[in-house]
Amino acid sequence: MAESKAPDSTRRSEKSRRAIYAAALSLVGEVGYAKTTIEGIAARAGVGKQTIYRWWPSKAAVLLEAFLDLGEQAAEAAGGADSDYEIPDTGDLAADLKVVLRATVDELNDPTFEAPTRALAAEGIVDAKIGAQYAEKLLEPQAALYVRRLRAAQEAGTVRDDIDPRTAMELLTGPILHRWLLRTLPLTHDYADSLVDYTLNGLAPRH
Amino acid sequence: MAESKAPDSTRRSEKSRRAIYAAALSLVGEVGYAKTTIEGIAARAGVGKQTIYRWWPSKAAVLLEAFLDLGEQAAEAAGGADSDYEIPDTGDLAADLKVVLRATVDELNDPTFEAPTRALAAEGIVDAKIGAQYAEKLLEPQAALYVRRLRAAQEAGTVRDDIDPRTAMELLTGPILHRWLLRTLPLTHDYADSLVDYTLNGLAPRH
Repeated sequence: MAESKAPDSTRRSEKSRRAIYAAALSLVGEVGYAKTTIEGIAARAGVGKQTIYRWWPSKAAVLLEAFLDLGEQAAEAAGGADSDYEIPDTGDLAADLKVVLRATVDELNDPTFEAPTRALAAEGIVDAKIGAQYAEKLLEPQAALYVRRLRAAQEAGTVRDDIDPRTAMELLTGPILHRWLLRTLPLTHDYADSLVDYTLNGLAPRH
Repeated sequence: MAESKAPDSTRRSEKSRRAIYAAALSLVGEVGYAKTTIEGIAARAGVGKQTIYRWWPSKAAVLLEAFLDLGEQAAEAAGGADSDYEIPDTGDLAADLKVVLRATVDELNDPTFEAPTRALAAEGIVDAKIGAQYAEKLLEPQAALYVRRLRAAQEAGTVRDDIDPRTAMELLTGPILHRWLLRTLPLTHDYADSLVDYTLNGLAPRH
């Protein structure tokens, strides 16, 4: 009896956690960050308010974790063992970067992500503290993947030694953010491919 | 008497308009977009609510115009005759782009711009209608300047003919938006210069 209690309770906790994540993401997408409350999340998830307060210190913390979890699930669904995830290194830098940027484009075009991603990004833009958490937990780990792949390319001689990999990463991902956030033009695979080609080869003619 | 009335009223209107712009920008910076109201703007500007409703259909319209006006004033202060403003064409594309990107960095680092720019950008991210106005009135005219300068460079042979100038523009400005919005690393003149050099020359070695 005593032995079976722990797994049951773990299963129940896991189920509540999933329900809370789902409720948080759907609510923030529907009513925005400001109007999303712990009470609202609890009601939609069918758990007590205290359950949420026991696990997370704030609304921002719930949302950020829900969001990280969404990303992890997407990475797992895409076949990555996500804690070990790296940008592929087939030796063809352009092809490897295109795989990753196309996947990023697909993710940003996925309606499941759209509303909560926008809500969280908007909050991070005006609230420096949430922005810092967002950057630390979400962006920096992604940036590190690019930096590692670009360093490997420098060692292989396909990227110049004087290039700062971090700035190079922003050249690849900044335009996608620009187009997505500002909704100026569609985000397509062709666009992702162009960004890689332009970034690697430059705008100036090669003689 | 009758002749002097029109200029006086124009002057008064202009003074009210300036006060309303200033009130709108300071309020949105302090309390955010959602909590900024026409009533609050009117009270701070020392005008009647009806004065605002006579000139603008909505809060979003007031803010967008206040914001455009701020940009125009900055452009005028920087010495540009702003309706005719173009990116300089000295024949040295890298130098010309660095002038513009450094000015953009300075503007984004200016505390006068910081809070209202963030508030408006955040609102545009979650509200597609405001985002579209923001893009149409603010971003597209700026994008057109880059496109014209890059087309001139294509004619001069310093940019490849197969480059899409619009995508090239996003390569230059996207990383700045990325760094500013996400507050990952400082925005400096050196960074602006690197973006121009990387974009024009590419990451791959030139043989």
